[in-house]
Parts: sequence; C-alpha cells; structure tokens
Amino acid sequence: MQSLPDSTHRLIEEFSRLPGIGRKTAQRLAFHLLKSEKDTAHRLSDAMIDMKEKVQECSICCGITEDDPCFICTDNKRNDSLLCVVESAPDIYAFEKTNSFSGKYHVLGGALSPLDGIGPDELNFDKLITRMKSGMELVIATNPSVEGETTALYLAKILGEKNIKVTRLARGLPVGGNLEYTDEATLIRALEGRTSL
Amino acid sequence: MQSLPDSTHRLIEEFSRLPGIGRKTAQRLAFHLLKSEKDTAHRLSDAMIDMKEKVQECSICCGITEDDPCFICTDNKRNDSLLCVVESAPDIYAFEKTNSFSGKYHVLGGALSPLDGIGPDELNFDKLITRMKSGMELVIATNPSVEGETTALYLAKILGEKNIKVTRLARGLPVGGNLEYTDEATLIRALEGRTSL
Repeated sequence: MQSLPDSTHRLIEEFSRLPGIGRKTAQRLAFHLLKSEKDTAHRLSDAMIDMKEKVQECSICCGITEDDPCFICTDNKRNDSLLCVVESAPDIYAFEKTNSFSGKYHVLGGALSPLDGIGPDELNFDKLITRMKSGMELVIATNPSVEGETTALYLAKILGEKNIKVTRLARGLPVGGNLEYTDEATLIRALEGRTSL
Repeated sequence: MQSLPDSTHRLIEEFSRLPGIGRKTAQRLAFHLLKSEKDTAHRLSDAMIDMKEKVQECSICCGITEDDPCFICTDNKRNDSLLCVVESAPDIYAFEKTNSFSGKYHVLGGALSPLDGIGPDELNFDKLITRMKSGMELVIATNPSVEGETTALYLAKILGEKNIKVTRLARGLPVGGNLEYTDEATLIRALEGRTSL
C-alpha cells in the first residue's frame, strides 16, 4: 500500500483505529471520502470536533450532555426517588428509547474489575451515595457480565444497610430468542426467575 | 434518540452516511470518540481534511496522487508499452499489492452504463486514446460485471482497429474458492478458458 498517497494512507490508519473498523473497511471509507464532495469530509470532520468541544459530563448523573446539568436531571416530571444505575452513558439511551422508565439515571463510568485495576475509587460511587436518600429505589442495570454482577452485588451491600430498596433488572430469555440456542447460564436464570401466569 | 446531545446526534447522522456504516455502528463510533482523548477526534478530523486538500487526479493516468503526475506515471523503470485499464483508482492498489505488474495504469472513472446516463463522454476514454501508441498492449481490467464487460467490449472495438493488442484479465475460479458454491456464470467462464496442464 506504499503506492497510496501519504495523506490517504494516514486517513486509512486513523479509520482502522476505530472499533469494528478493519483495514478493508477503513480503505473503503477513505476512498468513499476521496470520491465524494469536499463538503462531505468537512461536515463529518466538523461534527466530530463540535461534539468533542460541546459534550461534557453531567455533574449530577455523570451522563453526557451539552448543558450541565443534563435535561434528564433537571426534568421535574421525572420520579426523583427512582434511580437507575448504568455502567456507561450510552446505556441511558437504550432505556430512553423504551419510553418506559420515568426515574433518573446514574452513570458509574464502568464496572468493578480488580484485575484491570478498576476498584470503587475509579467509579462514580461517591456521587451516587450523595444522591441516595432514605425511601428511594435503586434499579441496578449493570451489564450481565462478571464485572457487572460484581458491581451490582457491591452496590447492594453498601446501600442495603440504609433504608434504600435495591432492585436489579430481570435476567431470562431475550424476546425473540430461541430456547435451543440459549446458553445454560441464561436458562438457569430464566428458571430461577420464573413467574406465575 | 432525542435524548442524545445534539452534537452527538449530528455525528451519528454523519457517520451513518458512510458506506457500510449502519445506525448502530455509527452510534458505537460516536460513543468511542466521546470516551477517547480529544486528540483522537482531532487526528481523524485532520487526516480527513488533509487528504481532501492534498489528493488530486493525476493528469496522465487519472489515478489519485499528491504530486501531479503521479509516481507511477513518472517511473522510468516501468514498461511504457503495457497499459492496464481499470474502472477506479483503488483498483490500481489492488494490482500494486501483487507486485506482478510492471506496466502503467489508466483509470476510466467508472464503467459504461447507459441506464445510469454514463456514456463514453463521461469516462476518461479521450485521455486513454491519446496515450495509446502503435505496438502497445492494453490490459482491460474492468470489473467482471455487466457494465465492466460492456466497457471492455467497447474498448476492444475502438482500439482493435489500430495496431494495438487488447487483452483482458482471465475469468475463472477464484483461488481458495469452492467449486460447490461457484455460480454458473463463473463455471462457464472457467470451462471456456481451461488451459492445458
């Protein structure tokens, strides 16, 4: 690929650093931008810089926002005594798309993972604890992974002593899934959590 | 997704305009850039603008280059009487990676496609004809599609009258392919083009 112009080569390198973008896709993207109007590259470039300039962390929920505090934290119609704890900001938008959650959120910024050096001090636990008041419900919505489960148990332990109801998302069969191809751990959780019809 | 910051939303829109990037991937890329250092977004943005500023069309072969004419056209070690005709500039790099072609290239900028309004005037045929000299060999390497075949036949017709040898790439089984899953058209070409061992 030494025969490519240097600047094209550099763009391919930069694209292939993005997650899920391999060498071939990076090349395809670079050639697409080469062929398209100058405007296309400028719009994409501006959008990128603009986002990096404007988006900041919400000082209350640690989610992403352009105006601090974010519009979810300042929304009076939302239930203040229901708090959903997620690992990362994109998780908030997964919930918001369902239009089914009327409480507020708190972003931990990851999950406990001692092997990767991520302990309680690296996550936004302090801010969460200052937000918790007696009588609130905390819905733990960490990922169903080892790290997510560890974080959920840790939270349940430190908050369970106060007068706070700690719940967690149900685990079971995903809607549209196929029983035949469901892994054992999921099936065990589905059995354990069975509900009466 | 209205709950996303405007600038993030805009970047997701811009990413999803790129070929092969769906909504989910665009979202993943935007969130990746949000999480990463400011520098990452700037490097990608700069590389994009830089490429659009610097890369131009080579005035001889119509390929892409930063310095006109391109380094392939100005390379004296290359065989001047062997010309490979391709549809688009990226095709040149597919050949260059093989290290097996010692001639020069000519980029048509597409293939004949009357239904899409692409006739001979829309392609770089004029420049190609001015480059052709008696005794040269022209290797037609258009894509093995209907448009590519049409373009190859058209070129063979207009150049065949002059003292120019017109050849085209072999069609047959791709290396590493599986006979069972090979389509009929390819099998027919492979049979027609069989060679003695």
